[in-house]
Amino acid sequence: MNPLGSKAVDESLAETTHFVLPNDTNTQGNLFGGRLLEWLDITCAISAHRHCKRVSVTVAVNHVSFDRPIKLGDLVTIRANVSRAFNSSMEVWADVWVEDPVTGMKIKCNSAIYTFVAVDQTGQPTVVPDAVPGNEEQQRRYDGALRRRQLRLILSGKMKPGEATELKALFE
Amino acid sequence: MNPLGSKAVDESLAETTHFVLPNDTNTQGNLFGGRLLEWLDITCAISAHRHCKRVSVTVAVNHVSFDRPIKLGDLVTIRANVSRAFNSSMEVWADVWVEDPVTGMKIKCNSAIYTFVAVDQTGQPTVVPDAVPGNEEQQRRYDGALRRRQLRLILSGKMKPGEATELKALFE
Amino acid sequence: MNPLGSKAVDESLAETTHFVLPNDTNTQGNLFGGRLLEWLDITCAISAHRHCKRVSVTVAVNHVSFDRPIKLGDLVTIRANVSRAFNSSMEVWADVWVEDPVTGMKIKCNSAIYTFVAVDQTGQPTVVPDAVPGNEEQQRRYDGALRRRQLRLILSGKMKPGEATELKALFE
Amino acid sequence: MNPLGSKAVDESLAETTHFVLPNDTNTQGNLFGGRLLEWLDITCAISAHRHCKRVSVTVAVNHVSFDRPIKLGDLVTIRANVSRAFNSSMEVWADVWVEDPVTGMKIKCNSAIYTFVAVDQTGQPTVVPDAVPGNEEQQRRYDGALRRRQLRLILSGKMKPGEATELKALFE
Amino acid sequence: MNPLGSKAVDESLAETTHFVLPNDTNTQGNLFGGRLLEWLDITCAISAHRHCKRVSVTVAVNHVSFDRPIKLGDLVTIRANVSRAFNSSMEVWADVWVEDPVTGMKIKCNSAIYTFVAVDQTGQPTVVPDAVPGNEEQQRRYDGALRRRQLRLILSGKMKPGEATELKALFE
Amino acid sequence: MNPLGSKAVDESLAETTHFVLPNDTNTQGNLFGGRLLEWLDITCAISAHRHCKRVSVTVAVNHVSFDRPIKLGDLVTIRANVSRAFNSSMEVWADVWVEDPVTGMKIKCNSAIYTFVAVDQTGQPTVVPDAVPGNEEQQRRYDGALRRRQLRLILSGKMKPGEATELKALFE
Repeated sequence: MNPLGSKAVDESLAETTHFVLPNDTNTQGNLFGGRLLEWLDITCAISAHRHCKRVSVTVAVNHVSFDRPIKLGDLVTIRANVSRAFNSSMEVWADVWVEDPVTGMKIKCNSAIYTFVAVDQTGQPTVVPDAVPGNEEQQRRYDGALRRRQLRLILSGKMKPGEATELKALFE
Repeated sequence: MNPLGSKAVDESLAETTHFVLPNDTNTQGNLFGGRLLEWLDITCAISAHRHCKRVSVTVAVNHVSFDRPIKLGDLVTIRANVSRAFNSSMEVWADVWVEDPVTGMKIKCNSAIYTFVAVDQTGQPTVVPDAVPGNEEQQRRYDGALRRRQLRLILSGKMKPGEATELKALFE
Repeated sequence: MNPLGSKAVDESLAETTHFVLPNDTNTQGNLFGGRLLEWLDITCAISAHRHCKRVSVTVAVNHVSFDRPIKLGDLVTIRANVSRAFNSSMEVWADVWVEDPVTGMKIKCNSAIYTFVAVDQTGQPTVVPDAVPGNEEQQRRYDGALRRRQLRLILSGKMKPGEATELKALFE
Repeated sequence: MNPLGSKAVDESLAETTHFVLPNDTNTQGNLFGGRLLEWLDITCAISAHRHCKRVSVTVAVNHVSFDRPIKLGDLVTIRANVSRAFNSSMEVWADVWVEDPVTGMKIKCNSAIYTFVAVDQTGQPTVVPDAVPGNEEQQRRYDGALRRRQLRLILSGKMKPGEATELKALFE
Repeated sequence: MNPLGSKAVDESLAETTHFVLPNDTNTQGNLFGGRLLEWLDITCAISAHRHCKRVSVTVAVNHVSFDRPIKLGDLVTIRANVSRAFNSSMEVWADVWVEDPVTGMKIKCNSAIYTFVAVDQTGQPTVVPDAVPGNEEQQRRYDGALRRRQLRLILSGKMKPGEATELKALFE
Repeated sequence: MNPLGSKAVDESLAETTHFVLPNDTNTQGNLFGGRLLEWLDITCAISAHRHCKRVSVTVAVNHVSFDRPIKLGDLVTIRANVSRAFNSSMEVWADVWVEDPVTGMKIKCNSAIYTFVAVDQTGQPTVVPDAVPGNEEQQRRYDGALRRRQLRLILSGKMKPGEATELKALFE
């Protein structure tokens, strides 16, 4: 059992909002990919921090998709939550919304999955509380996190495909 | 057959070099993850551009691992190549090296896989030349690209696991 | 009566969250005043935009107090609402909170009052909906807005003290 | 009597000049309000420093008005002086000028009033010299500073309207 | 004779002032060379613009010397003047001063010589007024400008040493 | 004889590549001179560091020419080498190339000559290895370095023209 107990996924919510200024655009006048990755990294780091109250460092970007271009002047909101914790590491899931300037309706443009590790004063990994999903979507992300973790370990050469039992089951 | 022919993986090499300045660090004095993601995005975009001579936009970050912290004052070199092309999309593989300040020996710290799409003047995807691997490592990355592509499509909900024949074979 | 109707103060809520990085600090290692003013301006602009769905430009900073220093590594949350609307101008009130890194408790550090004006495509001021307070604090800020508006007009030489009837009453 | 003596208002003059580059503009191509507030903060901090030769930190923005938009490519000059000193705090008054690119004539666009406090090595407030006005405009600003100080204390809840004798006289 | 007449060197004075913040330093905590070059370029561009009231673009950096390190927290003042005009080009001379934080005494740390060219709406070089020195130092810089111009043309391969009559005389 | 031996000019090669983004442009939409000077300074610092494996600080910019404007969206490559070493100082020569977006052909736009000095832990200059040219162009730059050094010393008032024997010979 986890000595630090557990926390609801909702408790780690982090929200940042950004206006896309000229400084953030590429030569097509759209939000530059590298800038969005930077905003995502900071928002996910805040969420990881809120979950574990420790300095948390990025150890992997598991997946980010850029589904539609974001334009100069757009209002971008990023919301991130710790979707699951494993010992000292946390999977953080972020959704990116763009607000229609007239109706105010928010359209989902991207989603991103980052992994953070909590570290102590000497920089060594340190255990974090469990994350407890509170609704159906949070449960689905929690369930998928183990498979994504095996994927990440295979992609960085730290696990053999044959050992990835969760992942294997997906294809059976 | 590809009407645009093919190009060697070596032709799309892009190299950028960076000194880690105070402006690039987090509160532990290490290179801030979001900044490295920005540098990777630009280096990969240059590589994609060199492969297809077209404006290329980020459509996904497939995987980035941060294996060791990079410190203030470190000299960071990023080298990226298009590892495989699929119609209008290109998988770009980047390696991150840190240089020992005294011996000059370069140590590999991270690797990253991004996907770009070439677009024409109207912003529509446009076909790119094939990428032809020229050595054993390039061949291995080329072979793995199809599996990673299926993974990416599954993760963004655009393919069902049952259709991912390449990926499935990995676990048999 | 306002042809655009009215909106609840709660509907214009804008929230931004920031990690204080080395790039944001002064030579004492505290958050640099100018940087906080920039963050406040953007957060208030988002709030004004959410109230009126129009491009909104800063016309005045009425008051900002810096009550305690904010340190490198602190997690800063800014929450802003339109407190009252007058024809084409909006008073926006922002509160700045710093999060205790261990307990997660938020301490209020600053508050700021900005004035924005909504403009149309030609840059001319254009009317905005009324703002309707929904709780006691919002009512108090709404009530005080008229006095602060008279103050601002006196300070920028656009009203004579004798005409500021609301303000005068304060001292009687 | 002030043990540190006094200094002429002219001795604290600080001047900064800026070209409005794409990085400084909002989506209308005008100077972004937050950027001007940052430039004002730095210029006023330099002026406060020149008056007291101490580290000086921003404690309040009393008033900033943005009277006309400043455009991309404009040449902006900010001139700031300590208008009055009170124990450890200094009111700093800044004027913003934009230069006509053809005639070179400078047009005044904004003015701003900030308050700084001088601090010693331990971060505690420390006394500063008096500021002595040297012309009519400096005298007028000096005279108004006491009223603005009472306003600021009322606005931040540190003084009751009934105690603000200077301010009260204004409306009689 | 110059159809645009002439202007005193004093009329083109441009002054900028900067606090060295963490964002401006190298890994030794000193002002990073590239940042000072950027500040010098902007200050000289303002001076060139004030002389000719035209868009002016950098065509060369003739010489910059960094005589002593500038530290974090230092207050840096740059003063630039057009020292001499040649048809469409202007030599701009900038001096860099650092202010002692306690005494306020300014110490000269660097000097820099840039060359700008005035361009019209189509980007073609356009003639500028002559620059007239007003004191001994301005006269000395004016006199040396012709030699430095020959040097610059030799260094960029646009003049043969044998044609540089002014420069040759220096060694006779 | 140099106790640290010598290194080939090729060993100090440093290469950086940059996309010109909106943040890097002036009001004409071209790469802003100050930004290129910053990129050159960093690239030359990396080259100096690779030659001597020591912290190296900029002591002079000897010459930079801006021969043609570089536009928004251009791909800029800077390649720098130590062209000659003198005790503790190194002349670094950088070439700037812009890539044709369609053909990929690189066109040389600028060249720059900087001088760096290697410093030890106390900030004192420290001796560096000799630089040995490996081809005809490197030899030509090596030969010219002594003349440019005498020029730099004359321009900064540290040598009298009469003592500059190498330079004098140029005009005979």
